[in-house]
Amino acid sequence: MTTPDTLPRRPQLSRASRALTITIPAENEQGESVPTSIAGEYPLTVYVDKREIVTLMTLGAAPEALTIGWLRNQRLVSSLDEIASVQVDWDVEAVSVTTRNGLHNADEKLGSRTVTTGCGQGTVFGDLMEEVDSIRLPDDIEFHQSQLYALMEAVRKHESIYKQAGAVHGCALARADGPDSCEILMFFEDVGRHNAVDAIAGQMWLDGLQGGDKIFYTTGRLTSEMVIKTAQMGIPLLVSRSGLTQMGWEIARRIGLTMIGRAQGKHYLLFTGQERFKR
Amino acid sequence: MTTPDTLPRRPQLSRASRALTITIPAENEQGESVPTSIAGEYPLTVYVDKREIVTLMTLGAAPEALTIGWLRNQRLVSSLDEIASVQVDWDVEAVSVTTRNGLHNADEKLGSRTVTTGCGQGTVFGDLMEEVDSIRLPDDIEFHQSQLYALMEAVRKHESIYKQAGAVHGCALARADGPDSCEILMFFEDVGRHNAVDAIAGQMWLDGLQGGDKIFYTTGRLTSEMVIKTAQMGIPLLVSRSGLTQMGWEIARRIGLTMIGRAQGKHYLLFTGQERFKR
Repeated sequence: MTTPDTLPRRPQLSRASRALTITIPAENEQGESVPTSIAGEYPLTVYVDKREIVTLMTLGAAPEALTIGWLRNQRLVSSLDEIASVQVDWDVEAVSVTTRNGLHNADEKLGSRTVTTGCGQGTVFGDLMEEVDSIRLPDDIEFHQSQLYALMEAVRKHESIYKQAGAVHGCALARADGPDSCEILMFFEDVGRHNAVDAIAGQMWLDGLQGGDKIFYTTGRLTSEMVIKTAQMGIPLLVSRSGLTQMGWEIARRIGLTMIGRAQGKHYLLFTGQERFKR
Repeated sequence: MTTPDTLPRRPQLSRASRALTITIPAENEQGESVPTSIAGEYPLTVYVDKREIVTLMTLGAAPEALTIGWLRNQRLVSSLDEIASVQVDWDVEAVSVTTRNGLHNADEKLGSRTVTTGCGQGTVFGDLMEEVDSIRLPDDIEFHQSQLYALMEAVRKHESIYKQAGAVHGCALARADGPDSCEILMFFEDVGRHNAVDAIAGQMWLDGLQGGDKIFYTTGRLTSEMVIKTAQMGIPLLVSRSGLTQMGWEIARRIGLTMIGRAQGKHYLLFTGQERFKR
């Protein structure tokens, strides 16, 4: 996909991507039958070392990356190296993860819950804010308006489930690769935007990519959890087509994230981290 | 607000609605400073009988109704009568709920989690599908296209945080009150659409309203959890401005819910439950 920044020891992975859309009959206001494409949505129960952890509802496009990224963003594993195997079996709607040395203080983390704002009710085990103050984002990267516009154009051209079926959120990991250009390294969609973020986090590990010189793009809103996950991936630049919430703004300022919202075509709003952005 | 269908014993409630938006500085593509209104987002930790249950991230507009509705939709309480008091204290970002006889099998329910698709990752304790097959929705209610159009117009005219700040989802409980008219009984917005649904569920209890003759409107997508929550509230008619996922469609068919999506202006798609809808 792209040159790895590091060479991880990869776990054994299934390749269990599912059909992403189905076509159903619907009736429009004229009473006409309108075949309508809709996004798939499947339960995927995550077992780690035979212990049931959680059930994710997912589009099913990248279940292995989603599982790895979910464990990463929940801070249940701290490197890909800790995961020996990720095997998805849709027949039983489950993914079996085998670790080399078990999960990090799983009992403690799985004990507490924060229901966050992705939908209002995402799930982050442990204390969301705990790690925020320990995050250091690089100051030496610049992002230019011309590169932002290139990213917007690349996203616009990207073939997507959303264009076909709607009802999904998309996330992209990108890198500015020239004064006026920006390359999409990976693009994931899911029925929930948190899943799409987690799939990016998982694939970054699988591809050995660091966040420090990357741009994270999401179609979703810039809520507290989206900002925190971006920072946890070490990515200093966050771009969204959507708006911002108060806590998203406060956390982005606190950790010095460069955050741009309402980005469409040639329009955007620069909310925080102005020092990295050049017009 | 409206005539109660039943007369519940109301718990003692705080009245702790928060400021809903703040204005922050932002820079547009011209480098101009653009004061931008954004939605509030606050953590609210729910304690029931002094036991910490969950932390919700919320706009804070209706924390008491949200708390009650969340407990209701999680099936931790089965009637308003079981709740003696709901006291929100924003100074400690917490709501203290006192029950008359404790929660329903809390240990069992709080033990398992399903992370659902509102955002991808909502939280429903216990088995989402468990109760679906026991739900019976009324067959004797009709909903006319002219009433749907009246609802769309009422929603369009409704003053909202969304118009001001974006980044929120809205839900309405409505009732057709004439051949060509539809009345909005309550309208809630929150940073997450699941919170908005839960606030509706809580306020329905507080106002003594049954779901059987009501219409549930949401700006959000018709995912499995949205369909299940609507059915659990006993509401036979679900209308959304957004699209549909596969599991939302399958569950709606299974329980005989009348579901309309992509509803804007004079356009819509009727997905399921055609028998209740008259053109």
